[in-house]
Amino acid sequence: MIVDVSKKILIVGLGLLGGSYAKVLKRFGFHISAITLEQSSIDYALREGLIDEGSVSIDERLVKEADLVIFALYPHVFVEWIEKNQHLFKSGALITDVTGVKGSIVYKIQEMLREDVEFIAAHPMAGREVSGVENSTDKMFVGANYIVTPTEKNTPEAVSTCMELGRLLGFSNVTTLSPEEHDEMIGFLSQLTHCIAITLMTCNDKENMERFTGDSFRDLTRIARINDLMWSELFVANKPALVEQMDLFINKFNDLKRMLEQEDIEGMRQMMRHSTQRRALFDKK
Amino acid sequence: MIVDVSKKILIVGLGLLGGSYAKVLKRFGFHISAITLEQSSIDYALREGLIDEGSVSIDERLVKEADLVIFALYPHVFVEWIEKNQHLFKSGALITDVTGVKGSIVYKIQEMLREDVEFIAAHPMAGREVSGVENSTDKMFVGANYIVTPTEKNTPEAVSTCMELGRLLGFSNVTTLSPEEHDEMIGFLSQLTHCIAITLMTCNDKENMERFTGDSFRDLTRIARINDLMWSELFVANKPALVEQMDLFINKFNDLKRMLEQEDIEGMRQMMRHSTQRRALFDKK
Repeated sequence: MIVDVSKKILIVGLGLLGGSYAKVLKRFGFHISAITLEQSSIDYALREGLIDEGSVSIDERLVKEADLVIFALYPHVFVEWIEKNQHLFKSGALITDVTGVKGSIVYKIQEMLREDVEFIAAHPMAGREVSGVENSTDKMFVGANYIVTPTEKNTPEAVSTCMELGRLLGFSNVTTLSPEEHDEMIGFLSQLTHCIAITLMTCNDKENMERFTGDSFRDLTRIARINDLMWSELFVANKPALVEQMDLFINKFNDLKRMLEQEDIEGMRQMMRHSTQRRALFDKK
Repeated sequence: MIVDVSKKILIVGLGLLGGSYAKVLKRFGFHISAITLEQSSIDYALREGLIDEGSVSIDERLVKEADLVIFALYPHVFVEWIEKNQHLFKSGALITDVTGVKGSIVYKIQEMLREDVEFIAAHPMAGREVSGVENSTDKMFVGANYIVTPTEKNTPEAVSTCMELGRLLGFSNVTTLSPEEHDEMIGFLSQLTHCIAITLMTCNDKENMERFTGDSFRDLTRIARINDLMWSELFVANKPALVEQMDLFINKFNDLKRMLEQEDIEGMRQMMRHSTQRRALFDKK
């Protein structure tokens, strides 16, 4: 379906991600429309040629005409939007998203959705430390992962269309995981790392520490500058998987503390060698 | 004393740090000698003009002639060296070091040292992910901190000479802390961050995680590639301060986990805002 550029794409939520999707897809010649909260976002996107038309209200025509609808909203806003407005979708429309958690969203939406519309979930693992459509870029997806999370409700066609979308957008790795595998992975690689960074940043408020800070501490706390509204919602939306990852971390950290207290040098060295070996796997290829 | 380039400097332990000291100080015209374990290190340093002479044994003449002796050894090797060889120091010699922990080293050495020789401790907070004299560089100290940790046993002259050494080496910030303040600071900013990185790297061995890794996880685990011999010794040498910092971290991390379990969104957002504000202090100036 995607390769047919006569199809119309609607992006709901024109922020950094939605805007970057529009920027890339417009280049292929698709007709792109957008629905978002702020008129200034629409104005910017029209001026820069990211979209063909846009609205700050739920413009029925835009929804009805769309063959593919991409949701780039906060999880609970996404769910509410579908509840209220799904009667507007064109029959046969394909729905996808960019939500960073899956298990708590995908089944809920597939359960409530009309039979003649299909939702195939995806997580583009890309971001920047800035937000808003004005920071959109068509370079954000190079080197990044695009993960499609199909369920039993999805058709093979929808899965391949969604994967094709990821490749069109320029993602370097396009792959599939189950919603549960996705949530465990994201709980560990992304959410746990953010939990650690904000904890490190707030656990010792002694003054003047910044005078002595080196690169290690800066690296570990770069992501401690965090969008509190979005991340608190994402944490709660992935609670079981994230709590499990936090427990794995706490247990290992307590092991290390116990070895230190007992001056178990050999135990610590073994952990450090394990760490060194395993880190090599994670080097940029 | 330092500004007088007719004085002779001996560096004991010619690795990355010792070699980098030599490289910078040689440029000022000092006579530099070195004692280290490997002949290949001496050969390299002579060939590259980092030192004037060197030995792999405790060459009595080199020690007896030195006005300033800089120790760049592992903590326990440093202490043993002083025990065995301090009778060789020239009367009036000044001793300094590069050891990354202070409380467990400084008092011990000052206690055992001859009355006519002074030990003023310093910690150059600089390093690279590579080691050995072959990786020496005269650029490593720009932007970095050099911390002198005087005690009641030190003379004001020794403190200012040591601070002048730090400035000659090119450190951007030269300052003093008590050994205890130093150990708390280093326990938090450096050792705790390494504990976190190696824990994160080893707490979940699930396969294929590296396929989905992004910059956040890579940033938090860069220092998980670690010299196990050196860091296990440094951890134990700073045990009380490091355990205290680990406890601060664990308590805060458990607070966050409790808020997540109770879905206390407002509590989590408050912690994230605190983290965001505090991180701004630590930006590179």
